[in-house]
Amino acid sequence: MHSISEYQSFITSHFSAISIEREPKNLYEPIAYILSLGGKRMRPVLTLMTAEIFNTDYKKALAAATAVEVFHNFSLIHDDIMDDAPLRRGNETVHEKWDVNTGILSGDAMLILAYQYFEQYEPVIFQSLAKLFSKTALEVCEGQQWDVDFEQRNDVTIPEYLKMIEYKTAVLVGAAMKMGAIVAETSEENANLIYDFGLNLGIAFQLQDDYLDAFGDPETFGKQVGGDIIENKKTYLYLKAMEFANAEEKEQLKHLFAVQLTQNDEKIAAVKTIFNQTGASEATQQAIKEYTFKAFEMLEKMGIEASKKVMLKAFGENLMRRNV
Amino acid sequence: MHSISEYQSFITSHFSAISIEREPKNLYEPIAYILSLGGKRMRPVLTLMTAEIFNTDYKKALAAATAVEVFHNFSLIHDDIMDDAPLRRGNETVHEKWDVNTGILSGDAMLILAYQYFEQYEPVIFQSLAKLFSKTALEVCEGQQWDVDFEQRNDVTIPEYLKMIEYKTAVLVGAAMKMGAIVAETSEENANLIYDFGLNLGIAFQLQDDYLDAFGDPETFGKQVGGDIIENKKTYLYLKAMEFANAEEKEQLKHLFAVQLTQNDEKIAAVKTIFNQTGASEATQQAIKEYTFKAFEMLEKMGIEASKKVMLKAFGENLMRRNV
Repeated sequence: MHSISEYQSFITSHFSAISIEREPKNLYEPIAYILSLGGKRMRPVLTLMTAEIFNTDYKKALAAATAVEVFHNFSLIHDDIMDDAPLRRGNETVHEKWDVNTGILSGDAMLILAYQYFEQYEPVIFQSLAKLFSKTALEVCEGQQWDVDFEQRNDVTIPEYLKMIEYKTAVLVGAAMKMGAIVAETSEENANLIYDFGLNLGIAFQLQDDYLDAFGDPETFGKQVGGDIIENKKTYLYLKAMEFANAEEKEQLKHLFAVQLTQNDEKIAAVKTIFNQTGASEATQQAIKEYTFKAFEMLEKMGIEASKKVMLKAFGENLMRRNV
Repeated sequence: MHSISEYQSFITSHFSAISIEREPKNLYEPIAYILSLGGKRMRPVLTLMTAEIFNTDYKKALAAATAVEVFHNFSLIHDDIMDDAPLRRGNETVHEKWDVNTGILSGDAMLILAYQYFEQYEPVIFQSLAKLFSKTALEVCEGQQWDVDFEQRNDVTIPEYLKMIEYKTAVLVGAAMKMGAIVAETSEENANLIYDFGLNLGIAFQLQDDYLDAFGDPETFGKQVGGDIIENKKTYLYLKAMEFANAEEKEQLKHLFAVQLTQNDEKIAAVKTIFNQTGASEATQQAIKEYTFKAFEMLEKMGIEASKKVMLKAFGENLMRRNV
């Protein structure tokens, strides 16, 4: 087994090696651009790590890991168009640097390229990977659509919200790990357990994102703290606060989320106070723990060495304790 | 073997049977909508027909045919966004009826759905279909990008133009037929020959489209005659006219293609005169014949009954003689 940072560097050097310098330039340059912006590469790292957990050289999983990362970046390009986002990882988004049409078409090409990375596996593994990939990719689209739909709704329930983040974010984490398991040709049972491990960790990860967006340390948190509050996003924190709030707090929160201000500091402070005093903050941290432990339960049933379980657990605990 | 219209009705009833009534509605309704608009269903018909040419029940090819048609409609949704087109088959385009974001995301979902239709084939055939599909889909994206790029260029050559229409249109016709051959598990040689048959016919088809856009009978031609001229599109007719034109005709044509008029009848008439007097019209009809005959040459080497070759030839001749 290697360390997370070793897997990260394997991925990084692999991405520099598979340079996408093809014609027409206006199609492939935006693809090379978004892939060059980096990021934590968490998903492909999980694919490589999982292959080795099931006793297979990470090199055999590089193509599948690449597919996962290319797909993830495809979804970023199209999501950024839909959200009209100017920046991605501190750089111009593709549709800003080029234009919307370029973003649409280069994104489409990336989705196809992702499938092509599976072609180097033999037919049975190819089919298994491509099936999981299609199912997951469609769920990610559905999650994105729920997210868009929820913006227009005032009656989103917590189970609906959890389903949305499961589809939009967590299924790809589960699939990234299961792909490592498929490449390693481990048992169906192990493959499903590692999927559920990744899925639950993915939900915990997204809830942690919601939490840190409000309560992260401005010194270490990469993005603007309070961004979700400024945009009136109905995150887990908000939904829990609405569930627990008394009549007065409910009115206050509704009022605060009905306005768009230029001066946001007071709004952020007021919302955070409500998140705290209703118990929503605590409930969110509790939920993060619960999903992380749910992930850990999967490990108990898994047929792998104890040392590897310890490693996976440490990975999950690190995610739970992260502050970026 | 069945007739073209029989294959069309198989496809139509298959599409009504596979209803895409899923949640979230805002993702799947636009998909059901575009698929309900119909069209000639030429590509899936070719997939079914090819399967039977190679002695396999068309039913076995229905899933692959569906994938081809779903992909084709995905590309229409995204192309219509890029072209800002208000109408498709006489109805509102998806991004007009809903919005651009819906068009992007529903299109993405269709591209993934197309891959899923291959899942019912066993692994070796699945891989073979999915590989051909990915290669083709990527070429269609490249063709679309060349088309966009060419709008900004004044030095497009005829070989470049032919490459563009090959990628944007013809490869999918070739692939639609080859998929029928793959499902039928005919020889690699036959599969490649039917691909080239479809590819050359696809090029002839697109050149015919260019020709009819200018010289079609307004009574029978579905679209506005002269549409390409109004939009200053540098089609095969235009490029050939520029190649053959004397200095005066060249100036005239350049001038006519530099303006956007509200009253277009005179412009259309003037351009058509130049297309005729330079010999561009004749050269285009000649090229249509040449590509059609190139397609027919493939049949000679193909290991199928003479009666089937006659049928494929009749199909090609019909395309060449069509006026819609």
